[in-house]
Amino acid sequence: MSERVLSGTGVTPRKETGTVVWYRPDTALTDGIENETIPSTERSAERDRFTTARRQARNELEAERDRTVEQVGEEEAAVFDAHIQFLDDPQIESSVCADIFEGAPAEYAVQEAFEAPITQFEGMEGQMAERADDLRDVRDRLIRLLAGSERVDLAELPAGSVILANRLTPSETAQLDPSRIAGFATITGGRTSHAAIFARSLALPAVVGVGSKLETVKDGVPVLVDGELDEVVVHPNDEKLDTIDIGADAEVTHNRVETTDGTEIEVAANVGRPTELAAAVEQGADGVGLYRTEFLFLDRETPPSEQEQYEAYIEALEAFPNGRVVVRTLDIGGDKQVPYLDLPAEENPFLGERGIRRSLGTDKGLFKTQLRALLRAAADASGGTLSVMFPLVTTVDELDAALDCIDTVAESLQMEGSNYTIPELGVMVETPGAVFMVTEFAKRVDFLSLGTNDLAQYVMAAARENEQVADLHDPLHPPVLRAIHQSIQVAHDNDIWIGMCGEMAGNPDLTNVLVGLGIDELSMSAVTIPDVKANVIEIDQSRARDVAARTLTVETSSDVTNTIDNQ
Amino acid sequence: MSERVLSGTGVTPRKETGTVVWYRPDTALTDGIENETIPSTERSAERDRFTTARRQARNELEAERDRTVEQVGEEEAAVFDAHIQFLDDPQIESSVCADIFEGAPAEYAVQEAFEAPITQFEGMEGQMAERADDLRDVRDRLIRLLAGSERVDLAELPAGSVILANRLTPSETAQLDPSRIAGFATITGGRTSHAAIFARSLALPAVVGVGSKLETVKDGVPVLVDGELDEVVVHPNDEKLDTIDIGADAEVTHNRVETTDGTEIEVAANVGRPTELAAAVEQGADGVGLYRTEFLFLDRETPPSEQEQYEAYIEALEAFPNGRVVVRTLDIGGDKQVPYLDLPAEENPFLGERGIRRSLGTDKGLFKTQLRALLRAAADASGGTLSVMFPLVTTVDELDAALDCIDTVAESLQMEGSNYTIPELGVMVETPGAVFMVTEFAKRVDFLSLGTNDLAQYVMAAARENEQVADLHDPLHPPVLRAIHQSIQVAHDNDIWIGMCGEMAGNPDLTNVLVGLGIDELSMSAVTIPDVKANVIEIDQSRARDVAARTLTVETSSDVTNTIDNQ
Repeated sequence: MSERVLSGTGVTPRKETGTVVWYRPDTALTDGIENETIPSTERSAERDRFTTARRQARNELEAERDRTVEQVGEEEAAVFDAHIQFLDDPQIESSVCADIFEGAPAEYAVQEAFEAPITQFEGMEGQMAERADDLRDVRDRLIRLLAGSERVDLAELPAGSVILANRLTPSETAQLDPSRIAGFATITGGRTSHAAIFARSLALPAVVGVGSKLETVKDGVPVLVDGELDEVVVHPNDEKLDTIDIGADAEVTHNRVETTDGTEIEVAANVGRPTELAAAVEQGADGVGLYRTEFLFLDRETPPSEQEQYEAYIEALEAFPNGRVVVRTLDIGGDKQVPYLDLPAEENPFLGERGIRRSLGTDKGLFKTQLRALLRAAADASGGTLSVMFPLVTTVDELDAALDCIDTVAESLQMEGSNYTIPELGVMVETPGAVFMVTEFAKRVDFLSLGTNDLAQYVMAAARENEQVADLHDPLHPPVLRAIHQSIQVAHDNDIWIGMCGEMAGNPDLTNVLVGLGIDELSMSAVTIPDVKANVIEIDQSRARDVAARTLTVETSSDVTNTIDNQ
Repeated sequence: MSERVLSGTGVTPRKETGTVVWYRPDTALTDGIENETIPSTERSAERDRFTTARRQARNELEAERDRTVEQVGEEEAAVFDAHIQFLDDPQIESSVCADIFEGAPAEYAVQEAFEAPITQFEGMEGQMAERADDLRDVRDRLIRLLAGSERVDLAELPAGSVILANRLTPSETAQLDPSRIAGFATITGGRTSHAAIFARSLALPAVVGVGSKLETVKDGVPVLVDGELDEVVVHPNDEKLDTIDIGADAEVTHNRVETTDGTEIEVAANVGRPTELAAAVEQGADGVGLYRTEFLFLDRETPPSEQEQYEAYIEALEAFPNGRVVVRTLDIGGDKQVPYLDLPAEENPFLGERGIRRSLGTDKGLFKTQLRALLRAAADASGGTLSVMFPLVTTVDELDAALDCIDTVAESLQMEGSNYTIPELGVMVETPGAVFMVTEFAKRVDFLSLGTNDLAQYVMAAARENEQVADLHDPLHPPVLRAIHQSIQVAHDNDIWIGMCGEMAGNPDLTNVLVGLGIDELSMSAVTIPDVKANVIEIDQSRARDVAARTLTVETSSDVTNTIDNQ
């Protein structure tokens, strides 16, 4: 087979070969089912197809139920029993069979048979209405099996798989076993999509936004996913394969790094779940600059206990015995959803009730439990220093209230005689409001951390998931750089340190200008740590400051880019 | 009857009495229809009720069709013929009659009869799917008529009506004849709801957010709507009625106003449709500080022609022969929808493709037509000076591109030999990006205008329609005031004028501090113009500057409010 190159957006500077496994969720298969008439001699065979698919569906459901009982619990597995019941519903069965004997293809008959009960449940209130979703799941499973596709089990892929998909949702990436996959490529998505962030935190080769041409690549063919050259190579030839080992990756160093004139820059990892800690350590992170705690709260039916959280925080701290772990308190809302929290549907979720707003309001109980676990872990961990920071703070009142919560929690731990330590406390600068109030914030905390993804989206009034305004997402737009600059100046005027944990912190092309702007810490996906460390030790601070100063005087993002490119 | 007071949120400092007319859209009546069994002796009467309702529905539909033919056109009236056809559908009729003869109430029978055809149309594609909405309209009309309610025709209310409603949508307020209504009160809504803005621009007494207790007020009773005391008084006694004429409204002045030390402050009106021009003139506006052009584009099937726009702009300019009319170019997107523009559904519309982003992209043709109409109107109007400003600009590239469009349009008008004048050009400062780039913007334009509603929502990362984050909407949060202050400073450093057209500009309590901050122009809903003008002439600039300076040093919005209250 001759080599074929599909271009997209590389999200990690990595390349790897593997064998294509298409991941297609069931719902993708129900579109475009047509009602051609089956000749009467073949209708009996058509009915057999349905019966077979139903048996396969039952087998799958029973296997999934058993695995869920084992890994999660009886209660969580109950949904599979409900699905099995629907599979055996006599009314659905008779509707399917009647349609097939009148000449409908089995897929069409299944779709029709589920239509009425789905509509019926949809019209009901509360929990009953949710049964409509269960019915849809059962229908989609049957239609997939009729189409002859086995469900790709993301948790059980053969080693060396390259996953191709339209997109990967957070719950889908959560199922992936990173040790088994060589990389992935998706039809949609950009550099800041969930799948891209996931790939970077695990240092996985990945190309996103390849477009519909990716659909021409069949299951089982060999591909090279090249995140550096932004391409997916189908049937790569030997010449291409040879490039894999040449890779220009910087060597990993576990030492702290400083510029040529002796300014130490802390290079830390963004970590979104405990399985990512190992990659962070391997890549030479000095610590964790952003420990997202949402994984503790997502994809479950009840909130985590204090003890469960405590253990997770201890695990993170002990992974970096000589380092610092900056934990961000729960940042739910916006695009994240949690079943037991009853989050409101919002018309503009990014401008809604998220971050510290929920922690000081609806979720205050949850917030205090988290702070208890953190203060106890800070005292008990056998290594590692804990820092805690609050997300999406826009007012002094919010910051004061969050700091009051720390005091309240400390007092109650004191009264109980529990071990605790008040950690270093910080605040994220990720809204324009925080930038305008950064002096007041700096006086109240020990450090600041620039969340440049959110900051850019609010400064530019452009949602980061909206492709229509993609031009405005670039953090190199002058207003974003000026906001960053102001925050750094104020932090230093107030003798506190300031880090950055947005995507731009991990872009090796920007290390020089960020150090020139005065950043003290850069926190990023593990994969880019070696490159960024390698860059830091080459930096001459006074020259970097010159470049940074020039980026602050130019007027457009392309002028900024040119200034950086021609430094 | 004894007096009863219901409290809510007053949105204009006006009070007036009138007679209650409940406005209930048909859809509100279809909830909670129950299927009690009608005794067999009454079923024939039940059928007559249905026949009567159907006849009434036909009469209504024919009247609405004829009025639409006359006022709009044959094509737009076609929908009413389709509705009449559905009314006569034999299948629906036989289903209704069958149910009634089995004992169903007529309302229930109607609801049931429409269920199947609605579901059927819903399952179809494209235009056919829209027939489901037509069927729902017909069903809802029948159910309303069965319930004995006549449709309230918003355009034909008796003079002195006080409208009570759950809420009023933009298309509903558009139908209101302001000369016939004494005021309104709604169950839901806040100070920045559409109905509230509408009330302010027409100086109508209005109280919103009264809650479900408003439902206890019956049609035909006398009420006092008191926007000043935030209450709706049912059966007001004489003492209450006497307060109406005492009103503390400032006297209207048609003169320009200046502070005690001679600084002229332009006090202008925000205008959202031509019918509001008269109120603006009557209330003594010096001109129009924000002429929203969306009314030209909304609620219609095709975009307006250049000539239609030209005439509207001429009308606005000639309403203020000695004044300035600041026209904002089309600001579509966000929460506004236009059928012929195919606007994308966005997860965060306020952070999406709106304002200048669409005008320089998808809607560039529309934008150029608007600019042509504006440049021609600027030359041809027999009075009034035109200014044009661009909404939602965040980058220098966008501003340069918009200014280029002006040049291109001017060149083509020149080539054609058409009369044109290049108006004063400005840019709205309504995103944090614009605040950080205000120096670059100020060098390129003749004036700036602070859009504080949007600015506050982006600075505070809090969508203005989201009640959950209502605390963060207050423009007196220190970061918003600091953004305003910076913009004013830069405008004056660059010798250009700067106005403000957000809701806060019309709050008489803030006139002193805004003048102290250095604002040159305040533009607001017509109703508050006399109060703001009365305040301006009392202001001592140096004392106002002191108060403004103090608001910039305090840390919280309550500190700001206290500083202003204790000035």
